[in-house]
Amino acid sequence: MTRERTGKAQEKNSLELRPIGVIRSKLKERSRAPKQGSEGAPDAWLEIYRFAAPALDGLAAGDEIIILTWLHRARRQTLRVHPRSDPKRRLSGVFATRSPDRPNPIGLHQVTVRKIAKNRLRIGPLEAIDGTPVVDIKPVLCEIQKHSL
Amino acid sequence: MTRERTGKAQEKNSLELRPIGVIRSKLKERSRAPKQGSEGAPDAWLEIYRFAAPALDGLAAGDEIIILTWLHRARRQTLRVHPRSDPKRRLSGVFATRSPDRPNPIGLHQVTVRKIAKNRLRIGPLEAIDGTPVVDIKPVLCEIQKHSL
Repeated sequence: MTRERTGKAQEKNSLELRPIGVIRSKLKERSRAPKQGSEGAPDAWLEIYRFAAPALDGLAAGDEIIILTWLHRARRQTLRVHPRSDPKRRLSGVFATRSPDRPNPIGLHQVTVRKIAKNRLRIGPLEAIDGTPVVDIKPVLCEIQKHSL
Repeated sequence: MTRERTGKAQEKNSLELRPIGVIRSKLKERSRAPKQGSEGAPDAWLEIYRFAAPALDGLAAGDEIIILTWLHRARRQTLRVHPRSDPKRRLSGVFATRSPDRPNPIGLHQVTVRKIAKNRLRIGPLEAIDGTPVVDIKPVLCEIQKHSL
């Protein structure tokens, strides 16, 4: 019952993320970054903070993973945008787009692990800019259950 | 420059999520919920809070979307788990699994929009339990660019 009560309390309070790492990339500015990883983005380093390193156990080069980032330059008040920043396209709610500007600017990036060097993962392609906080890593669940975890 | 500075400040401070809605489901307990939506989970309602409703514009029944939730009953100190709670499987880092127990318990759920009734979306299948806070909605980006947003 104690854990149930803790859960209730958390629900009423703020939901606070703790970064587990950070992106190190040659992309330095949002305005120059591709909109999606598949649009010519480079590989990047993901540095995992010491406290979270044990959670990497089981990941290997070649894995397809999902990186969740905190898009720290985003505008959280934005609720409608022109898709792909194209003023000719009619305004759309941000939940129908992948705009980084949204109430909770969590980025979702599917990447391949190129190599792992201690607490650093070489991953790509990735459109997130240098300094972007990373909040989670998940395996891709695919049809053939390559990752059935 | 002002926005750049705000970004820098946010990076140093806490990263706080603001729920944009909540799940209403017949699943009431984590222990009875399927581990993935594809494992027999039911449809559920997603109630969007009033402030975020304009961000729904452009979503329609039939859309494939990704729901990001805050798994409020998760244990955030957990860094290793037995995959699928099977004690016979060797301990694995949580980043190599889909365990809800992880430093930032963000749930990632791909669902179909069954219908939209004002600020409520009928979605499924969904394994998240009743009362789970929702923090983001994104369109699925697929090969054929059905959603090129």
